[in-house]
Amino acid sequence: MFLHFSSYFGNLFKISLFRFEKISHMKALVLKEKHQALEYKDVETPSPKEEEVLVDIKAAALNHRDVWITKGLYPGLKFPCILGSDGAGLLDGKAVIINPSSNWGNNPSFQNKDYKILGLPDDGTFAEKVCVPRNKVYPKPEHLSMEEAAALPLAGLTAYRALFSRGKVKQKDKVLINGVGGGVALFACQFAIATGADVYVTSSQASKIEKAIELGAKGGANYTSPDWVEQFQKNIGGFDLIIDSAGGGGFNNLVKLANFGGRIVLYGATRGIITELNPRIVFWKQLSILGSTMGNDEEFKDMLDFVDLYQMRPVIDEIFDIQDGNVAFEKMDKGLQFGKLVLRIDN
Amino acid sequence: MFLHFSSYFGNLFKISLFRFEKISHMKALVLKEKHQALEYKDVETPSPKEEEVLVDIKAAALNHRDVWITKGLYPGLKFPCILGSDGAGLLDGKAVIINPSSNWGNNPSFQNKDYKILGLPDDGTFAEKVCVPRNKVYPKPEHLSMEEAAALPLAGLTAYRALFSRGKVKQKDKVLINGVGGGVALFACQFAIATGADVYVTSSQASKIEKAIELGAKGGANYTSPDWVEQFQKNIGGFDLIIDSAGGGGFNNLVKLANFGGRIVLYGATRGIITELNPRIVFWKQLSILGSTMGNDEEFKDMLDFVDLYQMRPVIDEIFDIQDGNVAFEKMDKGLQFGKLVLRIDN
Repeated sequence: MFLHFSSYFGNLFKISLFRFEKISHMKALVLKEKHQALEYKDVETPSPKEEEVLVDIKAAALNHRDVWITKGLYPGLKFPCILGSDGAGLLDGKAVIINPSSNWGNNPSFQNKDYKILGLPDDGTFAEKVCVPRNKVYPKPEHLSMEEAAALPLAGLTAYRALFSRGKVKQKDKVLINGVGGGVALFACQFAIATGADVYVTSSQASKIEKAIELGAKGGANYTSPDWVEQFQKNIGGFDLIIDSAGGGGFNNLVKLANFGGRIVLYGATRGIITELNPRIVFWKQLSILGSTMGNDEEFKDMLDFVDLYQMRPVIDEIFDIQDGNVAFEKMDKGLQFGKLVLRIDN
Repeated sequence: MFLHFSSYFGNLFKISLFRFEKISHMKALVLKEKHQALEYKDVETPSPKEEEVLVDIKAAALNHRDVWITKGLYPGLKFPCILGSDGAGLLDGKAVIINPSSNWGNNPSFQNKDYKILGLPDDGTFAEKVCVPRNKVYPKPEHLSMEEAAALPLAGLTAYRALFSRGKVKQKDKVLINGVGGGVALFACQFAIATGADVYVTSSQASKIEKAIELGAKGGANYTSPDWVEQFQKNIGGFDLIIDSAGGGGFNNLVKLANFGGRIVLYGATRGIITELNPRIVFWKQLSILGSTMGNDEEFKDMLDFVDLYQMRPVIDEIFDIQDGNVAFEKMDKGLQFGKLVLRIDN
């Protein structure tokens, strides 16, 4: 009997809360199911849990990860979802930037099993507001616009760990950035140039090589040219550090291009399985092939300090209104951009 | 006219030197040409140049390198030659061990272009005497016999660099030694056990796995068994450090067996080209694939100190008289030994 009363009053209490609570809504780019277009529509505003904050997003940026999720090519898919790992905005009136990396754990060498990236499984930044842990919010670098700041987090962090923590880049190193068109590759290119390394790039597009040279790269090669490896060997010799996200059948070319004691940092697999790797060259040249993904909180902070120190600006290819999100996704899918694709959110 | 006189007296002087100089001879195992049997025969005793010494060899040991040279499968072949990288003997009445590694250079990360290993191009230890640079001669570890000391240099140095300098082995690491039959692999196994790591091995022969367990390994798997990878995954989980000299088609199994943040040190290529390497696993698990070959003078000294500290004894499979060198070469070629094959030189 007592239980019944309790349950009755409990329900009354819930109903009254529901009645007086204003259900708040926000606009977000929603992916209902894979292979579908994104929809910019009203959704319920998320409520921050303990230790979380609700950030007003002013700009967000695309990563390949987002495109792969729309195609169903990513582990742990969950629909409907709001994508977006990169965002900058306002928290309590202050300009902030978000670290999309969560649950790395205590070992700087690798991430925990429950490591996650903002924008799947948790809803991401392609929305007017996003809930994130309070300790993932950092002051926006002052010299950057909201759009520039939004371009930085995921790709900047990945490039920072690959180049510094794993690749141990140093002044005067000869560095090759393989496939400079990608977001991470371009940050790696900029960071390495700022460090005082001699940076070379590859791309399948001459215009991207030219743009990298404008940023301070010493030269480049079109990797669709049949003799690009020999040309590099003849003209430059070899490289102390190579940054690659392709893998695939051409990986052994990077092994050939590495100097004795060289490091090849691998942070992607866009060309799939490496089908030829000569172990004789790997051991005789004492090479290090180093896998790298994202980065930990310390590296995110160090990356922001580095960007601040050198007053670096992310390269932005194009800024879209968030309503035009699908156009931005199509452009990224075609891989024609040089620099980041940013979504502006006016709210 | 003056020139004629000078030349005449010069020749006289040479002839008189020749007359009074005793031409000294020694016995050596000579390889006249590839694919030929070795001949144990008299050759001229070498004369030490400046900064060189002549060591009386008491024991020498075989390495796969020696066998490959007899088959013509090694760069920089030169015939006739006296093989042998490993030796222990007497210098001025003191027991010594020889470091076979020369011209490493100043960078601990990799060897110089003119790096060389004793026993090709320079004549090696399969002889009564060998000429080596004075600074390559170290006191023999006191607890080792001449035969045990001779078993140590090349394989011990290679294992030491692979395991410590490159693999950064530490106490409680789970370590996999792939193919424990080889000389380097067996030293890596012993060194890792002495360090306090949990060591597992693979071999194609059950007897070798058993012998490794007698030395202190925790377990092993026969890599010819179709489910050895799954069995290891089920029973042990994964490995923090894997030491491999095979490469080849099975290398991706090692990548699968590596823990997050794991290191795979590669110091050989007996199975040839690596035909499958999944870059997605390499970057997501933040693996390091580290080429390693031989070692520098500092590492040789550290290796001797380590062997002394733990009073370690190389495993010797069999000792042959140097006259029976061809029998030892045949045994190594068949790969049936567990431990080093040593040649004893009675002179």
